[in-house]
Amino acid sequence: MDYFAIMGHGVVGSGVSELFYKQRTQIEARIGRPMELKYILDRRELEGELSSKLTHRFEDILEDQQVGYVVECMGGIDPAYDYTRRLLEAGKSVITSNKELVAQKGTELLAIARKRHVNYLFEASVGGGIPVIHPLYQCIGFNQIDEIAGILNGTSNYILTRMFRDGMSLDTALKMAQDLGYAEQDPSADIDGADARRKISILGGVAFGRHIDAEAVHTEGIRAITSADVALAEAGGYAIKLIGRVKRQGDRVLAAVSPALIKKESPLANVDDVYNAILVRGADIGDVMFYGRGAGKLPTGSAIIADLIDAARATDTLTTHHWQASPPDYLIPASEEKIQLFVRVNGGGPRAVENVFGHVEFIHGGKNGEELAFITGPDTDARLQAVVALSNTMKIQVQSAIRLLPY
Amino acid sequence: MDYFAIMGHGVVGSGVSELFYKQRTQIEARIGRPMELKYILDRRELEGELSSKLTHRFEDILEDQQVGYVVECMGGIDPAYDYTRRLLEAGKSVITSNKELVAQKGTELLAIARKRHVNYLFEASVGGGIPVIHPLYQCIGFNQIDEIAGILNGTSNYILTRMFRDGMSLDTALKMAQDLGYAEQDPSADIDGADARRKISILGGVAFGRHIDAEAVHTEGIRAITSADVALAEAGGYAIKLIGRVKRQGDRVLAAVSPALIKKESPLANVDDVYNAILVRGADIGDVMFYGRGAGKLPTGSAIIADLIDAARATDTLTTHHWQASPPDYLIPASEEKIQLFVRVNGGGPRAVENVFGHVEFIHGGKNGEELAFITGPDTDARLQAVVALSNTMKIQVQSAIRLLPY
Repeated sequence: MDYFAIMGHGVVGSGVSELFYKQRTQIEARIGRPMELKYILDRRELEGELSSKLTHRFEDILEDQQVGYVVECMGGIDPAYDYTRRLLEAGKSVITSNKELVAQKGTELLAIARKRHVNYLFEASVGGGIPVIHPLYQCIGFNQIDEIAGILNGTSNYILTRMFRDGMSLDTALKMAQDLGYAEQDPSADIDGADARRKISILGGVAFGRHIDAEAVHTEGIRAITSADVALAEAGGYAIKLIGRVKRQGDRVLAAVSPALIKKESPLANVDDVYNAILVRGADIGDVMFYGRGAGKLPTGSAIIADLIDAARATDTLTTHHWQASPPDYLIPASEEKIQLFVRVNGGGPRAVENVFGHVEFIHGGKNGEELAFITGPDTDARLQAVVALSNTMKIQVQSAIRLLPY
Repeated sequence: MDYFAIMGHGVVGSGVSELFYKQRTQIEARIGRPMELKYILDRRELEGELSSKLTHRFEDILEDQQVGYVVECMGGIDPAYDYTRRLLEAGKSVITSNKELVAQKGTELLAIARKRHVNYLFEASVGGGIPVIHPLYQCIGFNQIDEIAGILNGTSNYILTRMFRDGMSLDTALKMAQDLGYAEQDPSADIDGADARRKISILGGVAFGRHIDAEAVHTEGIRAITSADVALAEAGGYAIKLIGRVKRQGDRVLAAVSPALIKKESPLANVDDVYNAILVRGADIGDVMFYGRGAGKLPTGSAIIADLIDAARATDTLTTHHWQASPPDYLIPASEEKIQLFVRVNGGGPRAVENVFGHVEFIHGGKNGEELAFITGPDTDARLQAVVALSNTMKIQVQSAIRLLPY
């Protein structure tokens, strides 16, 4: 009999225990031997059958030689970081949904796991129930991966979907997401991009083998997106999505989170509501995309149990999860990237616009037919932003400037 | 040093050798030891460096104790079946793209592999470069899977995309697909559904653990789809896709391949051109979808190399690929399924239609505005087909009757 423990029995942790007992026969068949849940670490009390497994002492888990696998669903850095380090050092595999911890301390924790011949696995930290970390490395990782772009935050995607489909304002859509439990009362981590940038840092680490400092990733959220942007994007044949992406250029990578216009024919453009999707672009395999529920108790629980099965079947550290520290100049500044911008303006006709922006592609229409927007030619983000600043000093008031991305 | 061989050096086989040498460092790092290609079995002659590996004798591979892994890209049953059986019996793992062989003889070949503690792997037989067989079992397979629905044939999907996007007739789109090399001169296996039904049989075998007899799967191709169907489906907010699907109902499964109307908001509806996608619906994980290039030399070669890495890393037979024979009444006849039909008619107004079909939802429009189509209420396929037959004896001429599926 093998034993595991769960630390943190909130939404995700309780999803793990529920799914474990529901699918135990299947899970044990895949592991090839019996598995039992021995401890649940939580500050709260538990009711029902699981209450016999409750402990308030981390040391009960750390010191129990029978416990080989620990599921960490506590979230945050403190005390999850300290606990994870000590568990790995003690020769226990750790499985986590804690994206903040993986993004910040992954390099160190993965190195400890490797040294101790155990596993630190984190499928559940990105894309909820979508298998993406495992297939990214295990199935396509030997290929030359050039780029990953994902819709990684379900809350933002829900809000943008309501703005596009139902013509809601951002505030109304956010309120609705909060009422439905898709958004927190303080929605900042979701709609300002911090959640997405942790996830893209993790995906980039897995795909390119080096730590990406999430704090250094260029990050814009969706707060500035207006109904006018939505109407004009739609008129031009585009969706607007919050995209996290990481792109290899030589030995360096560009990583960024920002809202972006995407052609409606793109598979990413049609990922709606709380769904997430991760597009992987390879030199030889072309575009591969993974789609599904980016959050939720049971989908996320499923990702954790998949990792638990992998860890229990492993005879040593899986090579599938490993990245190294990166040199200081590893990240290319987003301002150096060559992009196109969608620009919405007030004042100034087409001729005035082209005098400032050069040749552009105009989008006419939107709901009241009076707004003017256009797509610039490609240039570096820095130069395009300089032109935007310049035009504001002239008769053209730039209301929005949003990246257009080629997916 | 480990050695592998390739049998059949056509499009897929040459993709394997090309990708192997291109990504060899990455591949060997994942395997954890050196790997070399020793033989290429082909009737043709080879030029260049690979010619030194060419053999015309299967026995060279079978009898070489150094060869532990054999990639079979010959296609068809004879002699691939005999060769595969003998290789597995000899204790060599076999990796294949041969969907015909896996669908027909998978149960037996998997049993031999299990008995001999080697692997028979076939990621490349479904969805080209899309990782689907591996994640289906390895990442989400312990969950209760209820249903799989896929766009599994790139040729048909290319033709339907041209009909929808460019207003082409089926014949024109087929001709274009042939000119571009997406369709064979005899396109029957693709557009009449035989290719898709082999793939759905394999997916059903992996997901539900029992052999599905491809020959017994209800199969309709896309030949009957007309521009009028396309116009009216579009007017109603639907796409038409060739869908292969398998659905669990108790201890039995329903498997079918047919064209189907799908709501435009569905992720499957937006899979266009030669792309494939496989939607997996689970009780707890919800909808998960895998998307990518369903064919092509290097994408398919990538799937084979992923399996080669898995086989070389395995210490015994992977439980990930195993299914058993099924009882004789395992397949539920498609005629018993409760569905809705999209029906396009000539003659007879709305009232006459509802006299025969009961309450329906009319779609008006299409290109010339005169055609009439409707969606029936839900009933068994058998009863709906009987009503279609009845209406043809009255003043209503049914031009098309196409399933509407809830994805």
